[in-house]
Amino acid sequence: MLSRVRSAVAHLVSSGGAPTPRPKSPDLSNATSAPPAAAPETPRSPPTKAGSGSGTLAKTVEARASFSRPTFLQLSPGGLRRADDHSGRAVQSPPDTGRRLPWSTGYAEVINAGKSRHNEDQACCEVVYVEGRRSVTGAPREPSRGQGLCFYYWGLFDGHAGGGAAEMASRLLHRHIREQLKDLVEILQDPSPPPLCLPSTPGSPSASDPSHLVCPQSCWSSQKEVTHESLVVGAIENAFQVMDEQMARERRGHQVEGGCCALVVVYLLGKVYVANAGDSRAIIVRNGEIIPMSREFTPETERQRLQLLGFLKPELLGSEFTHLEFPRRVLPKELGQRMLYRDQNMTGWAYKKIELEDLRFPLVCGEGKKARVMATIGVTRGLGDHSLKVCSSTLPIKPFLSCFPEVRVYDLTQYEHCPDDVLVLGTDGLWDVTNDCEVAATVDRVLSAYEPNDPSRYTALAQALVLGARGTPRDRGWRLPNNKLGSGDDISVFVIPLGGPGSYS
Amino acid sequence: MLSRVRSAVAHLVSSGGAPTPRPKSPDLSNATSAPPAAAPETPRSPPTKAGSGSGTLAKTVEARASFSRPTFLQLSPGGLRRADDHSGRAVQSPPDTGRRLPWSTGYAEVINAGKSRHNEDQACCEVVYVEGRRSVTGAPREPSRGQGLCFYYWGLFDGHAGGGAAEMASRLLHRHIREQLKDLVEILQDPSPPPLCLPSTPGSPSASDPSHLVCPQSCWSSQKEVTHESLVVGAIENAFQVMDEQMARERRGHQVEGGCCALVVVYLLGKVYVANAGDSRAIIVRNGEIIPMSREFTPETERQRLQLLGFLKPELLGSEFTHLEFPRRVLPKELGQRMLYRDQNMTGWAYKKIELEDLRFPLVCGEGKKARVMATIGVTRGLGDHSLKVCSSTLPIKPFLSCFPEVRVYDLTQYEHCPDDVLVLGTDGLWDVTNDCEVAATVDRVLSAYEPNDPSRYTALAQALVLGARGTPRDRGWRLPNNKLGSGDDISVFVIPLGGPGSYS
Repeated sequence: MLSRVRSAVAHLVSSGGAPTPRPKSPDLSNATSAPPAAAPETPRSPPTKAGSGSGTLAKTVEARASFSRPTFLQLSPGGLRRADDHSGRAVQSPPDTGRRLPWSTGYAEVINAGKSRHNEDQACCEVVYVEGRRSVTGAPREPSRGQGLCFYYWGLFDGHAGGGAAEMASRLLHRHIREQLKDLVEILQDPSPPPLCLPSTPGSPSASDPSHLVCPQSCWSSQKEVTHESLVVGAIENAFQVMDEQMARERRGHQVEGGCCALVVVYLLGKVYVANAGDSRAIIVRNGEIIPMSREFTPETERQRLQLLGFLKPELLGSEFTHLEFPRRVLPKELGQRMLYRDQNMTGWAYKKIELEDLRFPLVCGEGKKARVMATIGVTRGLGDHSLKVCSSTLPIKPFLSCFPEVRVYDLTQYEHCPDDVLVLGTDGLWDVTNDCEVAATVDRVLSAYEPNDPSRYTALAQALVLGARGTPRDRGWRLPNNKLGSGDDISVFVIPLGGPGSYS
Repeated sequence: MLSRVRSAVAHLVSSGGAPTPRPKSPDLSNATSAPPAAAPETPRSPPTKAGSGSGTLAKTVEARASFSRPTFLQLSPGGLRRADDHSGRAVQSPPDTGRRLPWSTGYAEVINAGKSRHNEDQACCEVVYVEGRRSVTGAPREPSRGQGLCFYYWGLFDGHAGGGAAEMASRLLHRHIREQLKDLVEILQDPSPPPLCLPSTPGSPSASDPSHLVCPQSCWSSQKEVTHESLVVGAIENAFQVMDEQMARERRGHQVEGGCCALVVVYLLGKVYVANAGDSRAIIVRNGEIIPMSREFTPETERQRLQLLGFLKPELLGSEFTHLEFPRRVLPKELGQRMLYRDQNMTGWAYKKIELEDLRFPLVCGEGKKARVMATIGVTRGLGDHSLKVCSSTLPIKPFLSCFPEVRVYDLTQYEHCPDDVLVLGTDGLWDVTNDCEVAATVDRVLSAYEPNDPSRYTALAQALVLGARGTPRDRGWRLPNNKLGSGDDISVFVIPLGGPGSYS
């Protein structure tokens, strides 16, 4: 049983037996930029599950589900069919003729080689206007001050166990970020330090009761310094949480299947915020130098967090799992012998005498792409997965997953960027077969073949990166020039030029 | 009340009213190198508590307690008096005449300026022989193979709330490391990968039942690779835990007062292991380059771990604390207003509406040296502190403290070291007033004034570092040449030459 569970990454959940209309996105008030959904279409070929023992899982439900691709691809019904074709695996990019993406951003994607019915990656690229709430600080508004803020937004969402969560996140996460920023519009545009405390009702003037507003001067000496930057980070973090809570609330009504990794970039007031929850990755290539802008969250990188949670809340492990890590499954005949183990506080290994409890399956097991939490899932942060259970069990996995991203900040004003400096975002389909140096080499090779002011160069680069990770069909598989297997996963790539909105938009 | 608690770092605990003989170190069997304790001596002057509101604390108990300094200082009764003199603050080093420390290690220390009755730092430097247990793997012993292992050991222990824990750790921690390594003697000397599983009874031959011994070949493909190095790391980690458990068990009988930070170096089979639990620090200065070998564990660096624990186990917070962080204490009149906060998942800040629970004191508060857990303690890892309570409360603080070190490994064989390459260990008394670059500059200045083969140069360097952090008495205080205040804390420094045992022992 467990060997099957261990490979059940694409495990379907929360589908029930109900009819499955296209995931209907719940709405947020004041939407500025809701992309219309692409027309649903019945896929032509039945799904094939590559290298998975989970073929018996509720595939029939998924087969009925519809799908969509990012609006900015402007796909016709025929284009949508080609984008959904596992055998051709045509690389998709926004058309050269239409309106360009902000900053002349490049984008390319390709569907998987049969791992799941549809492409479970989703993407979003938007310019979002944030209208401030009426004077949150209570100060009279200066007419000269801008009334709102704009941020640029890019998001990659790598779905698993269905496409619902990724699609919902791609439609809504930027609006949750906008909501979180609404209170900050005035504060972020004011060069003085953020006020510690705001009056209770936004818009209520504090002049009548000045004690409501704690001004920085009165207590600055004994308080922490809170920067504008850290407010934006907090806003993004909380937006992820609100998004996740919305998925939990609406999963029944709106068919939010599975979960997704989320890698999001926000450009606001001169700074680039890269927020990552999952195993997608972002790097900056600047003058040939590689600057990592994210970290992956997997059972291996988050082992100690997961083990600590299992140790502190053993009820989350049921009677099936142990929070201890062993280098392999302990066998019943080894009871009483001493085996290598790691506890939540350890980075090294030691021997312990095997007791009955150690025969349970370890909470964290496996290595690399095969590492799993509770023998089920290979990523430990992301959105959704509220109905994910251990196979043949009612034990929920969600308590071990975190919806919070790690946010890294890059100050765009600290360096004079040239047209060849780019921020590359990719889902794991890219990074599984390509490393940072290879990406940097492709950046150099492709961009140098185009004029610096040719805005199509970033799309060409995104396409080259996707093609380089996909490979070409040969010897019953997709293969790279070195004859190794290419990525059979969905692959999605954004290439964001760092010359800034002035130069390239 | 709370302002007093917040400054009560040197807070005395667990003394009771019982008579207080010199802390009697519990023994471990097979001791190879127990340093005899220095003769107890009644201190001459009453203690002064610098800048602390905790003067009412049980000082009388401490006044009766005796003290000791590291044996390798070979202090005479007069020397011990000078080492205990807060007004002279004479720098202490091992005598030039006696047997040198291993590797010609340099050492220097100075007592605090009145912050606590005695010097609460302790130090240990030993060569420890580990005799293997009889054939743990069950394999017949080869006569040609060495029967035991030697490791070199250096430890700095910075005590707080009494000197008992630091003294106990300085006498016993290396023996616990030896205990943990006993099972590994054979394994570490065998170049093949460590066996996953060992027979239940060390010494019982497995030849009669080969199934007891899982050999690497049979399951290597599906098991994690565990290195020899990670076994040593695990041994050190578990030794810290066993030491801490012993302190918990024996605190009543042996007068283990307070707690201590522990910074430990183990040299074994070509590798240097630096284990740190607390706010002492280690750096390597190699060819002028600085390589940090530790990280500090404070309420600020461990904020998220502490908050997570408070969030998952709210009973640990009593009714007095909240796991949320605020930039300053929330005032009752601010109820209903919105204040900046950080939750355990956040690195940024956001506003939240103040509710009744938010008026509790934050679990983590303050900045830099003033940061505290539960308004009491400024370090979050170390040994001891089993009786530490929040002031005027029965709430224990220990559950938030971790006894586990972070272990960094430096392979001494990967680089050809010259006589000027050193590993510098210092308690926070050094690092509070000196940064890495200043230390590297002192390394260069002092070592270049001595012949490369003069073994006294490392002691001279340790003394220069301690003197540079202490300063000289001027303007009613200890002042540095730049007229800033020197460190009023205990200061202890090891300088370990990396030329290795062959070159400098």
